[in-house]
Amino acid sequence: MTDEVRLIPIRRIPEARPGDSVAELVLTGMAACGLTGEEGDVLVVTQKLVSKAEGRVVALAGIEPSPFAIAYGQRWERDPRQIELVLRESARIVRMDRGLIIAETRHGFVCANAGVDLSNVPAGYAALLPLDPDRSAAQIREELGERVGWTPAVIVSDTFGRAWRNGIVNVAIGVAGMRPLRDYRGQRDPFGNELRVTVIAIADELAAAAELVMGKTEGCPAVIVRGFRYEPGEGSARELLMPAERDLFR
Amino acid sequence: MTDEVRLIPIRRIPEARPGDSVAELVLTGMAACGLTGEEGDVLVVTQKLVSKAEGRVVALAGIEPSPFAIAYGQRWERDPRQIELVLRESARIVRMDRGLIIAETRHGFVCANAGVDLSNVPAGYAALLPLDPDRSAAQIREELGERVGWTPAVIVSDTFGRAWRNGIVNVAIGVAGMRPLRDYRGQRDPFGNELRVTVIAIADELAAAAELVMGKTEGCPAVIVRGFRYEPGEGSARELLMPAERDLFR
Repeated sequence: MTDEVRLIPIRRIPEARPGDSVAELVLTGMAACGLTGEEGDVLVVTQKLVSKAEGRVVALAGIEPSPFAIAYGQRWERDPRQIELVLRESARIVRMDRGLIIAETRHGFVCANAGVDLSNVPAGYAALLPLDPDRSAAQIREELGERVGWTPAVIVSDTFGRAWRNGIVNVAIGVAGMRPLRDYRGQRDPFGNELRVTVIAIADELAAAAELVMGKTEGCPAVIVRGFRYEPGEGSARELLMPAERDLFR
Repeated sequence: MTDEVRLIPIRRIPEARPGDSVAELVLTGMAACGLTGEEGDVLVVTQKLVSKAEGRVVALAGIEPSPFAIAYGQRWERDPRQIELVLRESARIVRMDRGLIIAETRHGFVCANAGVDLSNVPAGYAALLPLDPDRSAAQIREELGERVGWTPAVIVSDTFGRAWRNGIVNVAIGVAGMRPLRDYRGQRDPFGNELRVTVIAIADELAAAAELVMGKTEGCPAVIVRGFRYEPGEGSARELLMPAERDLFR
């Protein structure tokens, strides 16, 4: 049973405030749970934890919605100030219908509301995505190395909807210390067939796995994935974005 | 550490032949690995294993491609017989461009090549999706119960591409014994905000997690997820399909 993978929740992480170190918060939670890092771990942290520590939480009261945001909000019974934030966080609107907004963020992620989210923040506030989630992941990794000599691969996760499928799942929006894709092309399956198209979005599967122990109401914003043999190396969540020239659904 | 989740690969499962019992194959692999089932387990099995046992593998040599399949295959250097199979397995073509075919299957799944796949089968053969993957999952579950008194939730997984994101991930195409979605609507987050839209596609996250220990070249077609508290109940992969009236991307 040496090749099993374990999903270990890090509970009891203190609530993050602007300017906090995510690495320190994670280590505090780990100490409270009696956990220590191991070589080869992957650390998955939620976007919400990172955004709070990076001050990417804004009060809706300070947002002046545009006439367009007011009109759309009124039409679909949504807070026009959230609509305004969604527009500000968007590089492009992909679909805007039935009260939904599917947007491409400045990072290139296509997701509902450009990642602007009113849950797991105090009432009257909205969390925005980190400005550079890859950099956030790299900083967490670096600081963990400096503080306790633990350098896990780090994934910043967020929960996205999908075209054609019901329900939302965790995906990776920031990556550090690992290759986010596992490329099987050129390898052979057990029948000797050359695998011609198989590239697995490992970082997204790690994020999805982590969500299983995070939940949405349990205050568990970080998970250790232990025993998974990832490919170490430079990695960026940008690699998880479909290149425009191959995208049939933009 | 009682609330961690473990992903346990079941290796040494014999190669499936038409008419084989998937439950028996899984139990053979578990015995060879020294594994026994536990209450509360989720068993994830690949579509490929199920399709082989159900005789859903066809020889390309017996397929007569239509003129349309021949034309598209020649234009994009793809086997016209595979194109023909894709068309036959499709209820509707969603996109057909640059050699790719994104199709809606008769089950309602939207995926590349309608799930017709030439990997992990003998050269010259293609695997098709099971006719009714929910029923396949239910049969595996029932038979495990009869044989050894183990009734895990069962998920049949396949690897799908995604709009806007690079790389493929495992999703659930068949479900038995569990609710595939976790509905948080009406619950409150730690800040007291009512969660208004959060429905997590748990079965897809379980399938994605399982892929982490399956790999594509290692002959590991089944995984036990142990320690995850799923919601028991009737479940269908159809619930994971976006209802047409809410689908902005059909």
